[in-house]
Amino acid sequence: MAIRTREEYIESLRKQKPRVYMKGEKIENIVDHPAFQAGINNASVSYEVAHDPKYRDVATVMSPLINEEISRWTHLMRDEQDAIAKIKLNQGIGDYLCPCSYRCMTSDFLHCMWAVSHDIDKKHDTNYHQNVLEFVKDAQKNDWIIGGSVVPVKGDRSKGPSEQADPDMYLRIVERRKDGIVVRGAKPHSTASPYTNMIIGLGTEPLKDYAVGFWTPVDTEGLIMICKPNPAPLETKEMENPLSSRFGGHVETMLVFDDMFVPWERVFICGEYDVAYTCGMILSASHTWHKCMCRCAGIDLFIGATALIADYNGLEKAPHIQDNLAEMVMDAEIMHALVLTAALEGWKHESGVYCPKSSSAAVGKAYSAEKLAEERFLMQDTAGGLVATMASEEDYRSPVTGKYLEKYYKGREGVPTEHRIRAFKLIEDLLGSEYAGWYHAMCITGGGPPFGHKMTAMRGYDFEKSKGKAMRAARIK
Amino acid sequence: MAIRTREEYIESLRKQKPRVYMKGEKIENIVDHPAFQAGINNASVSYEVAHDPKYRDVATVMSPLINEEISRWTHLMRDEQDAIAKIKLNQGIGDYLCPCSYRCMTSDFLHCMWAVSHDIDKKHDTNYHQNVLEFVKDAQKNDWIIGGSVVPVKGDRSKGPSEQADPDMYLRIVERRKDGIVVRGAKPHSTASPYTNMIIGLGTEPLKDYAVGFWTPVDTEGLIMICKPNPAPLETKEMENPLSSRFGGHVETMLVFDDMFVPWERVFICGEYDVAYTCGMILSASHTWHKCMCRCAGIDLFIGATALIADYNGLEKAPHIQDNLAEMVMDAEIMHALVLTAALEGWKHESGVYCPKSSSAAVGKAYSAEKLAEERFLMQDTAGGLVATMASEEDYRSPVTGKYLEKYYKGREGVPTEHRIRAFKLIEDLLGSEYAGWYHAMCITGGGPPFGHKMTAMRGYDFEKSKGKAMRAARIK
Amino acid sequence: MAIRTREEYIESLRKQKPRVYMKGEKIENIVDHPAFQAGINNASVSYEVAHDPKYRDVATVMSPLINEEISRWTHLMRDEQDAIAKIKLNQGIGDYLCPCSYRCMTSDFLHCMWAVSHDIDKKHDTNYHQNVLEFVKDAQKNDWIIGGSVVPVKGDRSKGPSEQADPDMYLRIVERRKDGIVVRGAKPHSTASPYTNMIIGLGTEPLKDYAVGFWTPVDTEGLIMICKPNPAPLETKEMENPLSSRFGGHVETMLVFDDMFVPWERVFICGEYDVAYTCGMILSASHTWHKCMCRCAGIDLFIGATALIADYNGLEKAPHIQDNLAEMVMDAEIMHALVLTAALEGWKHESGVYCPKSSSAAVGKAYSAEKLAEERFLMQDTAGGLVATMASEEDYRSPVTGKYLEKYYKGREGVPTEHRIRAFKLIEDLLGSEYAGWYHAMCITGGGPPFGHKMTAMRGYDFEKSKGKAMRAARIK
Amino acid sequence: MAIRTREEYIESLRKQKPRVYMKGEKIENIVDHPAFQAGINNASVSYEVAHDPKYRDVATVMSPLINEEISRWTHLMRDEQDAIAKIKLNQGIGDYLCPCSYRCMTSDFLHCMWAVSHDIDKKHDTNYHQNVLEFVKDAQKNDWIIGGSVVPVKGDRSKGPSEQADPDMYLRIVERRKDGIVVRGAKPHSTASPYTNMIIGLGTEPLKDYAVGFWTPVDTEGLIMICKPNPAPLETKEMENPLSSRFGGHVETMLVFDDMFVPWERVFICGEYDVAYTCGMILSASHTWHKCMCRCAGIDLFIGATALIADYNGLEKAPHIQDNLAEMVMDAEIMHALVLTAALEGWKHESGVYCPKSSSAAVGKAYSAEKLAEERFLMQDTAGGLVATMASEEDYRSPVTGKYLEKYYKGREGVPTEHRIRAFKLIEDLLGSEYAGWYHAMCITGGGPPFGHKMTAMRGYDFEKSKGKAMRAARIK
Repeated sequence: MAIRTREEYIESLRKQKPRVYMKGEKIENIVDHPAFQAGINNASVSYEVAHDPKYRDVATVMSPLINEEISRWTHLMRDEQDAIAKIKLNQGIGDYLCPCSYRCMTSDFLHCMWAVSHDIDKKHDTNYHQNVLEFVKDAQKNDWIIGGSVVPVKGDRSKGPSEQADPDMYLRIVERRKDGIVVRGAKPHSTASPYTNMIIGLGTEPLKDYAVGFWTPVDTEGLIMICKPNPAPLETKEMENPLSSRFGGHVETMLVFDDMFVPWERVFICGEYDVAYTCGMILSASHTWHKCMCRCAGIDLFIGATALIADYNGLEKAPHIQDNLAEMVMDAEIMHALVLTAALEGWKHESGVYCPKSSSAAVGKAYSAEKLAEERFLMQDTAGGLVATMASEEDYRSPVTGKYLEKYYKGREGVPTEHRIRAFKLIEDLLGSEYAGWYHAMCITGGGPPFGHKMTAMRGYDFEKSKGKAMRAARIK
Repeated sequence: MAIRTREEYIESLRKQKPRVYMKGEKIENIVDHPAFQAGINNASVSYEVAHDPKYRDVATVMSPLINEEISRWTHLMRDEQDAIAKIKLNQGIGDYLCPCSYRCMTSDFLHCMWAVSHDIDKKHDTNYHQNVLEFVKDAQKNDWIIGGSVVPVKGDRSKGPSEQADPDMYLRIVERRKDGIVVRGAKPHSTASPYTNMIIGLGTEPLKDYAVGFWTPVDTEGLIMICKPNPAPLETKEMENPLSSRFGGHVETMLVFDDMFVPWERVFICGEYDVAYTCGMILSASHTWHKCMCRCAGIDLFIGATALIADYNGLEKAPHIQDNLAEMVMDAEIMHALVLTAALEGWKHESGVYCPKSSSAAVGKAYSAEKLAEERFLMQDTAGGLVATMASEEDYRSPVTGKYLEKYYKGREGVPTEHRIRAFKLIEDLLGSEYAGWYHAMCITGGGPPFGHKMTAMRGYDFEKSKGKAMRAARIK
Repeated sequence: MAIRTREEYIESLRKQKPRVYMKGEKIENIVDHPAFQAGINNASVSYEVAHDPKYRDVATVMSPLINEEISRWTHLMRDEQDAIAKIKLNQGIGDYLCPCSYRCMTSDFLHCMWAVSHDIDKKHDTNYHQNVLEFVKDAQKNDWIIGGSVVPVKGDRSKGPSEQADPDMYLRIVERRKDGIVVRGAKPHSTASPYTNMIIGLGTEPLKDYAVGFWTPVDTEGLIMICKPNPAPLETKEMENPLSSRFGGHVETMLVFDDMFVPWERVFICGEYDVAYTCGMILSASHTWHKCMCRCAGIDLFIGATALIADYNGLEKAPHIQDNLAEMVMDAEIMHALVLTAALEGWKHESGVYCPKSSSAAVGKAYSAEKLAEERFLMQDTAGGLVATMASEEDYRSPVTGKYLEKYYKGREGVPTEHRIRAFKLIEDLLGSEYAGWYHAMCITGGGPPFGHKMTAMRGYDFEKSKGKAMRAARIK
Repeated sequence: MAIRTREEYIESLRKQKPRVYMKGEKIENIVDHPAFQAGINNASVSYEVAHDPKYRDVATVMSPLINEEISRWTHLMRDEQDAIAKIKLNQGIGDYLCPCSYRCMTSDFLHCMWAVSHDIDKKHDTNYHQNVLEFVKDAQKNDWIIGGSVVPVKGDRSKGPSEQADPDMYLRIVERRKDGIVVRGAKPHSTASPYTNMIIGLGTEPLKDYAVGFWTPVDTEGLIMICKPNPAPLETKEMENPLSSRFGGHVETMLVFDDMFVPWERVFICGEYDVAYTCGMILSASHTWHKCMCRCAGIDLFIGATALIADYNGLEKAPHIQDNLAEMVMDAEIMHALVLTAALEGWKHESGVYCPKSSSAAVGKAYSAEKLAEERFLMQDTAGGLVATMASEEDYRSPVTGKYLEKYYKGREGVPTEHRIRAFKLIEDLLGSEYAGWYHAMCITGGGPPFGHKMTAMRGYDFEKSKGKAMRAARIK
């Protein structure tokens, strides 16, 4: 069972009883609730791809920990080859049309916990790593999808954690007991949580009670999930929202740890805030790398949709349309190059896990965020006004109005009108639906804002070497 | 009745019986149909503002044609002062939060028809202008909102009008009769048509049957309106979609002229395609000017929302947030300057109407289109992830989950949590709703793509003078 | 003599004996020194244009102060019409190919002194304004060109004026005497000073000894001018450096006030630092407006040179070349619009002088600075490699090599080879000479960096109004 | 002698007698002529680095062809490892402050000739490859630097080769003889030619007489070199032009083949124009890859100079300065990533040579060209006005003026004034000298314009795959 099927994954969800709320109601059965369909479908892709002969090679790997074939998402990377395989696997998920399988977080957390527990044990003589090892094995055996979130609610952002009027604005330990700890706080940006198997809680503020790391089953008492309705359309039609009706965005959740108890065997940080830098570095590098990788796997759909509509409009060879496409191809090449470079020029943590190069990953994330807006401009500019004005599927199917739409939505000779309509409806889905809005926010600020990533890149850059070079050039001794 | 109230406008709609279809159904009563609420509300603003003491001065004007006070939207501009007043009026409409009252087209068409009929009469010894004069008077007396569209369906865009497999891809005259003409064709991007009073049909391809201009009541036989569902949410809540639930985008329509008859007294072009350039120039300059003006009147809302959320987050003074705001202020200043310059450096057509400078208007439209994407990036970047992850109004009102949201969505000290939630919901509305998608498409390609506007700007630029200057600089005789 | 000729201006320089140093030597006669030719030629254009029938109307104006016709550069603006005339005058100077006549500073200082002395007198019961009035009259009668600089050397920029190790890093009063004051300090960016007639010293730091304003003849004892060699080529040829050999950049100077004495009748600020804001506002708005105006007057040469070389290469109609030109035309339109808007939406200071709107001017300056780099890219991209590889004029004239160059530098049919060579040499001058470097620095940081101008624009923007609009949209009470 | 020293290289130049003209004169001894110092110094770096223990490992390699240790520049790449070593070698050359050693062309030509002669032999049953093999061996044994150029003069660029009024606008065969061919034409952008050892002539227009490839010693009769004066300053000072006085740009040359004879054993293309695509692909991919690599190796100097001046000004921590630096770091990371990706995702030609991936290389070249302008803006913006206004070294050394400059050019505490002056003079050299102009042109259009590179990237992109993905997303069968 180390490599679950889609069905096994969904079955695991049925057995869980998380406390899930949405639109004022408690939802007992998320698996069959329409608002969770698109999200679960997205998450399922990471399972499906592992059974797809085309991707099986990159999607699975022998675990040196449990000596079984496991999903690459629960595998700890050891070298560049593992990193490159990850890129290929993600490209495969993109080929399934899935914008986000959310399995990256599984990988991000496992790498981070592994390295961080190692470092803390070494420095503080604690014994976290053994627990993490068992957790990783379980994750591999059960092929878990792991959720959680790092970003705290932060409260008044002009003030630090200790200056907040309410001490709970950052996740914290409210009680240390013999058998474990009690935690309080909330994580406002927790994607997909209700349909994961395990939740990680993590905070690393430089204050003893605010440095805490643990895992817990999704249905632990004291863990409340308040969900935002999914941005995908609930109603399923044939032509409308052709992408988001299948692979709409994820359900986003606020996780509330309402004085939740965590036994010691699930704790991997408890007050050791000196580990914050390593923790951030590994988690952040891994996550930004994954996020850039996803944009890479998704930009092909943007480019393809743009090229397709240009073709259907009869304008594929128009110079300004070619320019539009060329800009998007530039973006695709640049993002790919950064992802690859992060994979190849990474480093090995003392604990044995391989980490992508944070500066390349950070630049990739920042670049991909900043360029999304331009890409959406280019796509709209190429497609034209029908993105916003095209009549509905029902009118196309109607005996009264259908004939007019068939006649007047005709594009380039040789292209069926219906194909052109479908292509426009895809672009509307990519640019003008609630799904598009979710994707916009996720690409721009998901994983942190571009500003922060640029600062990461700055930290990775050797300014002293460059200043030395300038000094030699200026003949400054 | 030359200056209608909102109620009088809506009453006029009730008396009309346009053939309107949406989602496969014929809609007999648009006024009370939920899908038309937001659009009609938008259009109503141009009536409300005329009765608002704050704007009455700029919103109304004495008509020299009918010697009555009329709406500025039916007024023919005579000079720079009229143009400046228009800018102020539009700013007022923006202050009502309305993204598009659609009255610009009323003005665009009236100016164009006035000038074009004058030119054709002069050159071809026809008698169109007198009819147009009567039409303008009626428009002023009745305070009409006028719809229609210029852009044809175009078919295969790699081919010209005469090369299309189907000759109906451009609006055309299929029969010339003693009492009038019969027209066939479609206009795919006709905003707001069902709730206007009169429709203009216009085509100016360089072929005798494809140059045609006329007006017709919205409920003329042979005129079919196939509507795209409105991008605004139909369900009205208090906190969600706070803007689009009131001022959502317009209903977009495909107008089909299904062998519709037009009596001669409503025709102002019939085969005289040599007028295309003037017609395009006046209509296009006027419309692009209005569209840039609208973005100008709307960017304040973008800036305000961004500054507000920065403030509520406690980050208003953070340098990178200040940068974000500064970029948006730059855009606001630049767009305003271009709108003003177009108003001041316009020209007077021989027929007496004043036209804005096309190159400044074109640059304004292109600039405002190209920058929208960046502005949306800046807004998202400033606001952060809660745009995509915030829980619903119902959960905030719920006795079970409300307390968590109240606690954990708290931002800067002194700001009620509910205010911050509302601010995020506004930004989600601006960036992540279907309304946002409609606005994206409208701003980028509505009124034509940036590429076309740049070409207009090129035509307005005196390259010979500049090349001469370069030749003097290079000492080329 | 209120409107001097070029010759009269130069004659005035001969009578002056400033202490001028360059490259380690004292220069007694700058008028005939090769390093000052280009700079004096630039400054002369503001005199020539006043006698050119084509520009005389905008270049001269009746002074209400001395009831004589004077140069517009010494005139105090009273209204929008004066501001618009200034734009036209500057356009004329651009038509002379002059990148910078430096007369803007004459105008900037006179307006600032006029307003500031008025305000100080009113508040502090001083009597500066009468002195300034006499100074303005003299400036008008003598048609002076006035130099000086505001920017201090600043020392360690992470520290304020009072924190510097050396108290002289900001201009300051070192002694207050019965007959006047003694000042010390330096101004490092003083363009053209040696060939002006009067020097203004100005500092407004918020410390009593650091707020000082005065004027003094260029050859006052204690005033040292240390000049950077002019970036224009000294050797005059026919084809090479065709622009900079005539209108090369200005001589830049460090002004040192080495305990220089200033009699009271030449002082207009002495310790009244509360005037700093007004002083900065008026001077800065005026100067940034002028600098944007100059880029406006100069971009035509960039566009013309680009269009010319495209034409000579046979590529004028190539789509990507058209794109390049369109971007530059956009810039020209935008800068013009901002300059015009600043002129029209200015304000009248209580003292009677009219000031351009600072936010539009600031945006214009920032935009023009940020876009210069792109324009230089576009010009190089359009022209191609010959900008950097073209052989010299001597080789073209040589009997041995000339025939090869004549044959192989031939471009589009119908264009003499020599014309094409000249066009390339112009572009090399604009992009690849020391003159080009001077222009780069002047456009980007001259008049202050873009960052500062954006902050000015921010201050001019009504955030409270916009936030209020957003609050209404978000239904926040 | 397979790895020459700097001295041996220079000695080889002394033995050559090329026909070199500059500024109307024939130059017999280029080695000792001041105009060639900087260029020869640049080229020498590729020899020096091979003897530098720090770089020897990457700079040299065992040749499988001659079984000797050779310079990597004459080595034919066989795999990714060779490609990565090349990147490191180039980084070393950048560390020497050299902007361009020009050895890339040696490598570009050898790879191209090797592959192309292989393909032609295979298809046309010719025997070119054996000759090329001998040439490569000679190049390796003698450690040659090889010059030449591909870009033709082109004449009227709106017309193709066969439409030109003068048939010599593209390099062509004017006579085929028993012992060889006679060629005519010119190459206008031939960098460094006079101080190379061998010249390659290459043209691949689709016409029998216009497809020609050969090599020839630099001093062959009939080969004329008309040189543009070097952009580096001839006068050597200590502080001024600190970089360009040592590593100024190269001498650029027009090569004229004035009916030059080439014996058959030096010919590798003669009429086989069907090889044009492969030839272009290999040469262009190799050269654009090298050019991007060079910018990568040079941007550190830009960043270092910018960081240094920020530090000396006391502004290194100012947020807008940090932003400027972050943008440049982004560029450095992106260029590096593209270079690395091109190295790793290349392909092996049937003849055995390894070629970098053309699309990544093309994007790298286009990106690096487009960003140069922005980087120059950022550098100027960070440094401030002293770049353009700083007095000369002589004035700093002068007993009269030196004390003022020492006092008033003082920056951040702890930084000697002289260091700050030197840093500004470096930036002036990078931005405001003729060297800066040469670099601008070389980076933007050297190796072809960005437009062309983008088209290359387009060709390398799999649009059909992406369109297929979009069709699946749109449910188009």
